[in-house]
Amino acid sequence: MTVQLAPVPDHAPLPTGFRAGGVHCGLKKGGQLDLGLLLADRAVDAAAIYTTNQLVGAHVHLCREHLQKSRGKVRAVLVNARNANCATGEQGIADARQCCVALAKMLGCPTEQVLMASTGPIGAPLPTGRILGNLDALLGAVSQDGAMAFARAIMTTDTYPKAVHHHAAAGAVTGFAKGSGMIHPNMATMLGFLLTDGSTTGPAMADLLRRVADRSFHRTTVDGDTSPNDTLMLLAGSTSSTSGATLEQTLTRVSQSLARTIAADGEGATRLVTVQVRGARSESEAAAVGRVVATSPLVKTAVAGRDPNWGRILSAAGRAGVRFPAEHARVWVGPADVYSGGRPHPENEPLAHRHLVDDVEVVLGVDLAVGDGAADVWTCDLTADYVQINADYRS
Amino acid sequence: MTVQLAPVPDHAPLPTGFRAGGVHCGLKKGGQLDLGLLLADRAVDAAAIYTTNQLVGAHVHLCREHLQKSRGKVRAVLVNARNANCATGEQGIADARQCCVALAKMLGCPTEQVLMASTGPIGAPLPTGRILGNLDALLGAVSQDGAMAFARAIMTTDTYPKAVHHHAAAGAVTGFAKGSGMIHPNMATMLGFLLTDGSTTGPAMADLLRRVADRSFHRTTVDGDTSPNDTLMLLAGSTSSTSGATLEQTLTRVSQSLARTIAADGEGATRLVTVQVRGARSESEAAAVGRVVATSPLVKTAVAGRDPNWGRILSAAGRAGVRFPAEHARVWVGPADVYSGGRPHPENEPLAHRHLVDDVEVVLGVDLAVGDGAADVWTCDLTADYVQINADYRS
Repeated sequence: MTVQLAPVPDHAPLPTGFRAGGVHCGLKKGGQLDLGLLLADRAVDAAAIYTTNQLVGAHVHLCREHLQKSRGKVRAVLVNARNANCATGEQGIADARQCCVALAKMLGCPTEQVLMASTGPIGAPLPTGRILGNLDALLGAVSQDGAMAFARAIMTTDTYPKAVHHHAAAGAVTGFAKGSGMIHPNMATMLGFLLTDGSTTGPAMADLLRRVADRSFHRTTVDGDTSPNDTLMLLAGSTSSTSGATLEQTLTRVSQSLARTIAADGEGATRLVTVQVRGARSESEAAAVGRVVATSPLVKTAVAGRDPNWGRILSAAGRAGVRFPAEHARVWVGPADVYSGGRPHPENEPLAHRHLVDDVEVVLGVDLAVGDGAADVWTCDLTADYVQINADYRS
Repeated sequence: MTVQLAPVPDHAPLPTGFRAGGVHCGLKKGGQLDLGLLLADRAVDAAAIYTTNQLVGAHVHLCREHLQKSRGKVRAVLVNARNANCATGEQGIADARQCCVALAKMLGCPTEQVLMASTGPIGAPLPTGRILGNLDALLGAVSQDGAMAFARAIMTTDTYPKAVHHHAAAGAVTGFAKGSGMIHPNMATMLGFLLTDGSTTGPAMADLLRRVADRSFHRTTVDGDTSPNDTLMLLAGSTSSTSGATLEQTLTRVSQSLARTIAADGEGATRLVTVQVRGARSESEAAAVGRVVATSPLVKTAVAGRDPNWGRILSAAGRAGVRFPAEHARVWVGPADVYSGGRPHPENEPLAHRHLVDDVEVVLGVDLAVGDGAADVWTCDLTADYVQINADYRS
């Protein structure tokens, strides 16, 4: 069971100059899409950020190398599901390279303008034969209408495809993500792809992407695990006039929506939880507190039990390494203040309890009362279902 | 269900010069012991370390004040269960003080030589009437044979009392702890008390206690939550010749045993897990890696599923903020190497699986291959039972 926030769209538009698609190449069962492609009509500007894990998937090595060599220019991004190509040594990197070489040849572009991303169980060799044998079909399948096919192709344990778009007169952004929130069985990975017709390039583009991630994907705390393959890419076509702050705002908005769907699609989740931290000394301190609250098993099991447990929330906030006077803090659950002025308010708990029972998207808030810093962090509740899923997954 | 490592002893000896005991004062149901006392025949040297949480129980304020005022001299430690006296404001501190004043008067010692510790649900006023009305009975109940009564009186969600002793010709240490591992419902607290007839005093005593905790209680990671009331106290009677390195070694040994029982008594736990980290640059880096592995829900659910999932172990180690080349790392589960030389060893997984199935105390190991630093960290597995317990606790 996971939280379905909105009906899955049949269609998501792509920014001008981009095509997308997916095919079945034999990695997933039952003919499901498992090989996806993002294709730019011509080489566009690209930036990427990767996992900070010491164990790193082969595609991360390759993407770093290619982006450096191509000076941030990219024609295509190839993505396979059901195999992480991780802990596969030098052979894994050679396998990924072989896929990029073949695709670049078909596109008539330099190899380094092709990136790759892999997601799925780690430790197994990449089935290159299946991928290489289906590149022709994949190139035939990409189109301006192919966004949802791509979104489906990159799913692993996700229960629904994750695509979000924001298209305005000035410019367009379409984003994709995969990642199944709560806990990642066998290292299922967070992958994110942002396409825009807006303009950004070079070091400023890398900085922009990091700021966007800091306010979106880096605020989705699932189980605190960063997988070896986590990757977020931004491709900018520069055919519209959107740039600077406007572009950053749109990218952030799209990324936050994607980040929320990742939390909502957590295994066994029954509630999407937004942790609102207010009154911190800075945004980064607020985010730090929010991440600890949102990662606390105590807080997450309380939500699963529909218990407005202010003590668990305040205590989690208190161990984030951020100084604040607990007697001035305020804690709320949905519309109800459950702790303030140094004491609990049991008279408000029934209202808080109703919020947890009635609403699929719930809010837990803490005001630290030491400044103006604010941040929202997203997570989901922790249910017995999720333990069952993850204990049984590979036994 | 929790892991019972050894039969609960009927009796634990106390070091010379100490008495202990417990009575029922009406906080727990069914006449169970809920008020405990540690009593030194004369004022002894004492040191304490407390939670780093920003939310702090009343007893922590009071203990800090008393130890400073008494220059580290203590006659008695009063402990109540089933009420944390936390988030109770100024009144909570006044309530705790009142208990200490009354007990000091009965003992004929300065108030500041009496310490107090409280554990249980937070946010409710301390029932001082019940405590004050039973101090007489408590003083009558303490004896040299009262260690197990004290251990039982400080239990909250613990399923068995936790007392460990190491008595040798040169000197004696008896330790007590409470804390129910996995996750602390309503902030049930880690409390630890160490009594010795050995000698240590002043700033050196405080440093000693911190080193002991760093190698024991600070290496029991449960859910990563520090409660507002966490407290560890050391009382040293100086009647034996034990001191220095010998005393530190014995205190560390007793504390590690207590720390293991806390992990083993985790809610829903079916396995005590020792995470062995080897080959780190330093002991502290090894401990940091061990704590991340031992806190990972991915790793803990894998143990619950009896799955020797090397990928989850290596990936958790990889996100601890410690640099190491994953291709040279080694991962083992019990007697079986499951990853080394940059690749998994599926042929060894059946042996690893048998270890997880057959043994109640299991070992997960990682060698980082960058130095000689080593540390063990203790935790337990994460089962669906534990989520159920914590979701349902207060709803």
